[in-house]
Amino acid sequence: MADYKDLDAKVIKLSKQVVRMCTAAGSGHPSSSLGIIHLVTALMYRQMRYEPQNPWNTGADRLVLSEGHAVPAVYAAYCELGGVVGTEDAPSELSFDDAMSLREGDSVLDGHPNPAIGMPFFDAATGSLGQGLSVAAGLAAAARLDQSDAKFFCIIGDGESREGQMWEAVDFIVEQKLSAVRPIISANGQGQSGYVSDQQSTETLAKKLGAYGCEVRVIDGHNWDEIIEALSAEAGEKPVAVVAKTVKGWGVGALQSCDSHGKPLGEDQLDAAMADLDAKAEQLGVAGAEDADAAQLTAPAPVTRPTGEEISAGSFAEACAAAGQNKAYETKTMATRVAWGVALRAMGADERIVATDGDVQGSTYTNMFAKAYADRFLEAKIAEQNMISMAAGLAAAGRIAVATSFGKFIARAYDQVEMAAVSHANVKMMGSHTGVSLGADGPSQMGLCDLAFFRSFAHTKRVDGQPMIRVLAPSDAVSTFKLTHLMLNLDGMCYMRTQRPGVPFLYEDDEDFSLDGFKHLIDGEDICIVASGYMVHEAKKACQVLEEKAGLSASLVDAYALPLATDEILRIGDDCRGQILVVEDNYAGGFADEIAAAAATSDLGVMAESMCVEHTPKSGKTPEEILTMVNLTADDIATKAQSMFDRSEG
Amino acid sequence: MADYKDLDAKVIKLSKQVVRMCTAAGSGHPSSSLGIIHLVTALMYRQMRYEPQNPWNTGADRLVLSEGHAVPAVYAAYCELGGVVGTEDAPSELSFDDAMSLREGDSVLDGHPNPAIGMPFFDAATGSLGQGLSVAAGLAAAARLDQSDAKFFCIIGDGESREGQMWEAVDFIVEQKLSAVRPIISANGQGQSGYVSDQQSTETLAKKLGAYGCEVRVIDGHNWDEIIEALSAEAGEKPVAVVAKTVKGWGVGALQSCDSHGKPLGEDQLDAAMADLDAKAEQLGVAGAEDADAAQLTAPAPVTRPTGEEISAGSFAEACAAAGQNKAYETKTMATRVAWGVALRAMGADERIVATDGDVQGSTYTNMFAKAYADRFLEAKIAEQNMISMAAGLAAAGRIAVATSFGKFIARAYDQVEMAAVSHANVKMMGSHTGVSLGADGPSQMGLCDLAFFRSFAHTKRVDGQPMIRVLAPSDAVSTFKLTHLMLNLDGMCYMRTQRPGVPFLYEDDEDFSLDGFKHLIDGEDICIVASGYMVHEAKKACQVLEEKAGLSASLVDAYALPLATDEILRIGDDCRGQILVVEDNYAGGFADEIAAAAATSDLGVMAESMCVEHTPKSGKTPEEILTMVNLTADDIATKAQSMFDRSEG
Repeated sequence: MADYKDLDAKVIKLSKQVVRMCTAAGSGHPSSSLGIIHLVTALMYRQMRYEPQNPWNTGADRLVLSEGHAVPAVYAAYCELGGVVGTEDAPSELSFDDAMSLREGDSVLDGHPNPAIGMPFFDAATGSLGQGLSVAAGLAAAARLDQSDAKFFCIIGDGESREGQMWEAVDFIVEQKLSAVRPIISANGQGQSGYVSDQQSTETLAKKLGAYGCEVRVIDGHNWDEIIEALSAEAGEKPVAVVAKTVKGWGVGALQSCDSHGKPLGEDQLDAAMADLDAKAEQLGVAGAEDADAAQLTAPAPVTRPTGEEISAGSFAEACAAAGQNKAYETKTMATRVAWGVALRAMGADERIVATDGDVQGSTYTNMFAKAYADRFLEAKIAEQNMISMAAGLAAAGRIAVATSFGKFIARAYDQVEMAAVSHANVKMMGSHTGVSLGADGPSQMGLCDLAFFRSFAHTKRVDGQPMIRVLAPSDAVSTFKLTHLMLNLDGMCYMRTQRPGVPFLYEDDEDFSLDGFKHLIDGEDICIVASGYMVHEAKKACQVLEEKAGLSASLVDAYALPLATDEILRIGDDCRGQILVVEDNYAGGFADEIAAAAATSDLGVMAESMCVEHTPKSGKTPEEILTMVNLTADDIATKAQSMFDRSEG
Repeated sequence: MADYKDLDAKVIKLSKQVVRMCTAAGSGHPSSSLGIIHLVTALMYRQMRYEPQNPWNTGADRLVLSEGHAVPAVYAAYCELGGVVGTEDAPSELSFDDAMSLREGDSVLDGHPNPAIGMPFFDAATGSLGQGLSVAAGLAAAARLDQSDAKFFCIIGDGESREGQMWEAVDFIVEQKLSAVRPIISANGQGQSGYVSDQQSTETLAKKLGAYGCEVRVIDGHNWDEIIEALSAEAGEKPVAVVAKTVKGWGVGALQSCDSHGKPLGEDQLDAAMADLDAKAEQLGVAGAEDADAAQLTAPAPVTRPTGEEISAGSFAEACAAAGQNKAYETKTMATRVAWGVALRAMGADERIVATDGDVQGSTYTNMFAKAYADRFLEAKIAEQNMISMAAGLAAAGRIAVATSFGKFIARAYDQVEMAAVSHANVKMMGSHTGVSLGADGPSQMGLCDLAFFRSFAHTKRVDGQPMIRVLAPSDAVSTFKLTHLMLNLDGMCYMRTQRPGVPFLYEDDEDFSLDGFKHLIDGEDICIVASGYMVHEAKKACQVLEEKAGLSASLVDAYALPLATDEILRIGDDCRGQILVVEDNYAGGFADEIAAAAATSDLGVMAESMCVEHTPKSGKTPEEILTMVNLTADDIATKAQSMFDRSEG
């Protein structure tokens, strides 16, 4: 049996710091943190091959703390090790005392792991539970492509392992043979509200992991021999999963009761806690040895990740030919989802791009990429939450991660989308079958609230001033191709929405697009119609109806981006008797509100009315039948535009 | 071995109809439907105790078709049985031929199960996969309360069972010993994009279900003896789960290849398909017997569900006393989340109310209800997706289902929320810890995009004209209490958002509130400030600053509902020099857009500016520190208001 007195002593030092830092913060989760203190110490002082002074080493092992609220344990260790934070251009080294800045407004030691504010030890923001193992899976998938032998440790709470996403991740890891991932469940048996369910007991967790295809080690999470053996065990094709029996509040009596979750000790309880830990030190024979060096770390060689300049698009015509879409190109009619496939395939040669899809690649047309670049395609199956967090892991490893599904099913992962956005993950999402035009399948397959959700993030800025998420809503195949190009070259998260039916081309191959742009398709003076995506085509027909039936000349704007350059649109509206009609095939909260919000703060006095899907749709056989149901046909649009014109007259 | 020739003959008849109806629709999933045709026939003609002519029988067994795209099988059977659709007031009986109306605009046979449009055989809209078992769990939990011995069959696809939510549901069912639920996985081995993963093979599924604590039957899904035995097996405390090996496209050669998912046969393929099925009939010795009666159904006795008139609130003072919150009541300071707990406890005596929470009941204060009415509280643990769909099941069984968590974590289940809304489920959600005021925990715990998401549904009408979801955002304890009262008495889905910190009372106990309302708290004339939730308090301070520092008299409006009665707010703004400043602690897409959208369509020419959270927050120690970071302090508000006033001056 090895001698681990140095680690014992370090655990005492770190435990004391964990307790103190939470008390100083006045919040935090010291009991959860102490539960994983041995696991964290073993990993960060011994097991992980990494450099605390260079968290950007591309060959390093990584720790994903899925149980994000237990982060004080990691902070205490990282500070004690003099870990580096900030950016690669402006790094700074932490001191032991810096741990006491936990949760302060100007500290990188956020309440939960948050890499985007300058904590590069972490790859993803966690704290919304159950997501970390998916991130680790993405990191490992990227490492495999990089021919790295790095390992990816992921600490998960037992209560947390109730989240279904974790099991989606286990399926993915086993299926993809990503044995570099080592899930470690800290089974302390306590939740926020009482005890953890028997469904998440040590025994049941071990059984489940075994049934999923893992090799399982059940260990004492405070026993060094067992920990080191479990962390260092070589995995074959089967991933090794560790269930560690831990004690919530290890070493501190006042933190061990079932109602101590998420509660720091008061100042008046600190002495007793320190005395508890001193007694532990005494018992372990390490009193007074807390400051001895315990780190035995190996710096791995960095791996070379693919880099590149701007991804080139080539011409849309060539891309169509290469994808076998010559006929569609010649007839100038193609669904935007097909154009997505054509574009991704055409630009997919760039080694940085890795794509994933949720068992709908034949419908999203991501299969065009999957066939051409099979080594960089990961089939995520019907598990959207894992897909999105896994993509965030790919992105954290330097990849341009592309994730696609029906827009409706991406909603399944909106929380994961938000966490990826908080992490500044370079993930490009494409949601197909949005709006009502898919028709026959009905509301369970239609992406309708997507614009409202994503617009919220389009107007929230990251630390670097960029939108958390940009939205792109192309109306035809050419713009889909061009916007895919812009999106792939952008460093930031994007959501593109496409539709099912074929639509005629609106643009020539040489048209240029911008990330916040729109196109003024028809110049008129009586009313300005702003439409998006599929509805641009319906609005174009409406313009014709208005001209033919009422002699009205309508302006038509194709709005394809959020945030949107609204100033110029308001000016176009101002030139059209101050009347703008916004037409969308989604629920409220999208482009109409984008323009209304601008109109309501502008001196121009432009009116902005909205036509969108105002009641829950049902199935209908054709796009036309559904548009009739939801009052969004060309005639409906023309009627509304006429009434706005009449009002402006009167 | 029993003689099942009548069922064999019926399967041939139904299979032919399934093929025909999908071809007529020009879309649909005939291959998946034929895979479950024996399971569906066994259930609907033999096993289920129900009345096709009275789908509202409260004691009946239920079928939840989680694999929603396989619904043509169920429709074919229900039509053949003369099943009743429509409403209880206006029922109508289907004929066999009605199946051919699949997916038509005026048909209740929607592309996926959709009870809200008049298909009462179903309890919930499905089609976004992985949700059905949770619905069945909710139905079974309600049935237990009703002392019903009904059974709840749930058919799930093998590919679908990759969704983590399904395993959350299995955990819940096993933990709660809801053995009335019988999960039936149709394992046909094919997905949309190729074969189903080995992780979802028959063997692995059986292992997983066993590890979760089910008693597992692996059967041939086209063998009557095995089906009937598995469906009728008595379960003890352990639920019986069935893994049925099925053949996708059973009986029809052209539908059995791996690329036939979701593709109807062409008209020109129908003859061959019918010939295939005729050959099957021949082989089974049932040629020509298709129309013989095969149904052997038992009508169960209805159970009595709790009913009631309006739920009474009592006084807030009494409610506080009963909940041990006298001190907070006396000091007139209480967090809205605490007032939620007080309210739910006070109104919770009504037997219709059943509540659930995702292991944060100590933070949401739903624990006040849980303690008082333990028999009507279901701890959902850390599994929000199951929680919401399970609540939809409770609601489908006539309960007022209450589901609570942090607002951030309800985002985990936004797809489930949407499906519940499509189902017209009477679910009341409360999201706590919204906005930035929770402070120290950081962005992973803050509900920030919730208003944008839910507002989208607030402006979408159900079949009955009601909003799909209403939003309530109370600013103080009294309004929380009153709005909880309104919410519980409403037949419809609601989302209430509350905050963590204590705030002073703004209202007296006898104040009245309405579902689309607001309160004009301060009457002024220089600028109108509209605020919501926690920000009403900050805005109130801003009004004071404006008065003291600049001599400006500001109007203050507490906007607490979406959809919102904006006309009157615009009039107040009009009286305040046409200037409205909307202040929120969420990302864009909430109240500011609600008012801007109204302003942009109004002749009043009111300007509406927005202050909201415009960059990703991080941790800070106090609400004040975070508000400073995101530029939302009283001083920030006053400065902005002053600049708007100055602009209006000209």
